[in-house]
Amino acid sequence: MSTIRAIIFDAYGTLLNVHAAPLSQVWRQKQLEYTWLCALMDRYEDFQRVTEISLRTAAQATGTTLSEEEMQSMLSAYLRTPVFDDARPALEALNHLPLAILSNGTPAMLEAALGHNGIDNYFREIISVDEVKTYKPAPKVYALGPQRLGIRAADILFVSSNWWDAAGAKSFGYRVCWCNRQGGRFERPDLQPDYTISSLAEVPALVQVKS
Amino acid sequence: MSTIRAIIFDAYGTLLNVHAAPLSQVWRQKQLEYTWLCALMDRYEDFQRVTEISLRTAAQATGTTLSEEEMQSMLSAYLRTPVFDDARPALEALNHLPLAILSNGTPAMLEAALGHNGIDNYFREIISVDEVKTYKPAPKVYALGPQRLGIRAADILFVSSNWWDAAGAKSFGYRVCWCNRQGGRFERPDLQPDYTISSLAEVPALVQVKS
Repeated sequence: MSTIRAIIFDAYGTLLNVHAAPLSQVWRQKQLEYTWLCALMDRYEDFQRVTEISLRTAAQATGTTLSEEEMQSMLSAYLRTPVFDDARPALEALNHLPLAILSNGTPAMLEAALGHNGIDNYFREIISVDEVKTYKPAPKVYALGPQRLGIRAADILFVSSNWWDAAGAKSFGYRVCWCNRQGGRFERPDLQPDYTISSLAEVPALVQVKS
Repeated sequence: MSTIRAIIFDAYGTLLNVHAAPLSQVWRQKQLEYTWLCALMDRYEDFQRVTEISLRTAAQATGTTLSEEEMQSMLSAYLRTPVFDDARPALEALNHLPLAILSNGTPAMLEAALGHNGIDNYFREIISVDEVKTYKPAPKVYALGPQRLGIRAADILFVSSNWWDAAGAKSFGYRVCWCNRQGGRFERPDLQPDYTISSLAEVPALVQVKS
């Protein structure tokens, strides 16, 4: 196998712990559904807007009464979604490679969350789907990685905790690492990742160090 | 408003009661997710295959042990998904108009289910997404209706119980009727249907009879 020349990380769910938020299960599920439906309908609405609409649905679906103020406060907190404990040490250990983010988040959301957690400086490129106005797992989104890094997909390790994102990246042609923290099932057996790990701490060992 | 010149029905969930099956909540949810993800990844797998994969996931997710035989028997039963009680009288009452089906199902699945329920003869056209190898709510799917009926979308009433299907049809340009049997919420407020009903029995009243 060729040497890994760069690493692209997914943000929400992989580096950033979306399940730190209240209502997070339904909120996240609806958020993802809305991205897929928007993309399929060719009616892109940015991730900030999708996050807001999905919070309203999650509140209604769970019978949670939220004032407009509480809603806005939850959306502000989303901009400060905390980083997983295993992320920073892994990024530090991988610092000799070009690192990038490829995320559904808007540039403003990513800047806010990465900046808040003080990990923005690790990344050479912070790539948002907003550039192509569609969502993962559309191939158009994954194509942004090789374009921006100038490295072919087969030489880039794509790291995601979302099985369907890992499947989309594999389908596109990346070398793929699925970070399966929850011991979940990979739901698309024909698009298995090259590596499955349970913590980002295992990523550095996957990257061959040139001697 | 212009006269409704034809009616297109969604099949699964609208005419056919998918929730008659065991595991139906998770099965259906996963089935839909897989159609959206397949379509977005540009990796179409037909609805028969998606229905099978999603049943396996539903069994695992709910901790249900199913033998291969039980699995096959559930998939066979899916080909005989029962029609809702309100469907046949509505189709009978609408028989003066060209009626069609536009469904995610494969032609074989649709033929089996409609034939089993003895309602196949009501439809002039039975249109499957299989023709364009993608899934609802992709515009390419909705475009099949006007193409096959030779009637513009604005003059066709599109009837679906799935809010996201109704939204997709509205986005495409149909006159849309959402059959909200469960008293659910329409999750895409900017793509509201033209009519919301709680039973297919209400469809005939929506269709202006020319005097």
